[in-house]
Amino acid sequence: MKHTTARRSQCPINYSLEMVGDPWSLLVVRDIVYFGKRTFGEFLASAEGIARNILSSRLAHLQERGILTKSPHPGDGRKDVFALTDRGLDLIPLLLAAADWGAHHAPSTDAPEWWIELARARRGEVTVLIREAVAEGRSVFVGDDSVVARLSAAGEL
Amino acid sequence: MKHTTARRSQCPINYSLEMVGDPWSLLVVRDIVYFGKRTFGEFLASAEGIARNILSSRLAHLQERGILTKSPHPGDGRKDVFALTDRGLDLIPLLLAAADWGAHHAPSTDAPEWWIELARARRGEVTVLIREAVAEGRSVFVGDDSVVARLSAAGEL
Repeated sequence: MKHTTARRSQCPINYSLEMVGDPWSLLVVRDIVYFGKRTFGEFLASAEGIARNILSSRLAHLQERGILTKSPHPGDGRKDVFALTDRGLDLIPLLLAAADWGAHHAPSTDAPEWWIELARARRGEVTVLIREAVAEGRSVFVGDDSVVARLSAAGEL
Repeated sequence: MKHTTARRSQCPINYSLEMVGDPWSLLVVRDIVYFGKRTFGEFLASAEGIARNILSSRLAHLQERGILTKSPHPGDGRKDVFALTDRGLDLIPLLLAAADWGAHHAPSTDAPEWWIELARARRGEVTVLIREAVAEGRSVFVGDDSVVARLSAAGEL
């Protein structure tokens, strides 16, 4: 229901903007994809300094829109764990496009240049690796089993 | 100056969101890229029904951020003509990613399915064609000289 009500137009770009076109939603998706974050506290700690109430609202919207799921934290009943649905995983190409534009146009960024170049030169392949990783609860950068750790172990970096 | 002040973080995705991460900015870029629009009145007439004051504010922001230029309309001194800078043209991959996600996840859209499939299957090539077209003042869909008109004339559609 919520995916079909009150759309501004039938344009697919407009639809994407209605779903994630605000200054914060994609940062939550980024935190999951690149850094393997999954709890409210982890998202709250990100460098952009999102306010608690905005983060709560964004997480609720992303669930309503079918992009995130929420489930009880297996080890700590006071916490919830957020994960991307298939619909959310499909946002990975949009994240990569946003990262690429930002890395090339910002005066400076903290993204490793070799990663940006790799993600540009081998976009299709990198997209598949990231999707696979995130679907398995891994991430691009963080963990022994991250996309970057595996590429590195394979001698590809 | 304006590109360097008060950034929330050094993340390239965050930078892109600070530049165009709102529900309206990319619709203006879309109007130029896909439909060859270039005046305030043309943007105002788009299906999403943007309010005058929001459109004014978005156009001003996009100029400040180095994404759009404004110049007097050659045939009508009361009007201005907006165009994408190189920095703005570099947003085309982000538009294509947003269009692709929206077309696959919206319950319905008005985007031609053959176009979405073409843009997915031949992404690199299509991106180059679109950039070239828009840099020359042409568009994806509108005009005898549009990307689609040329692909059609070449028997590729």
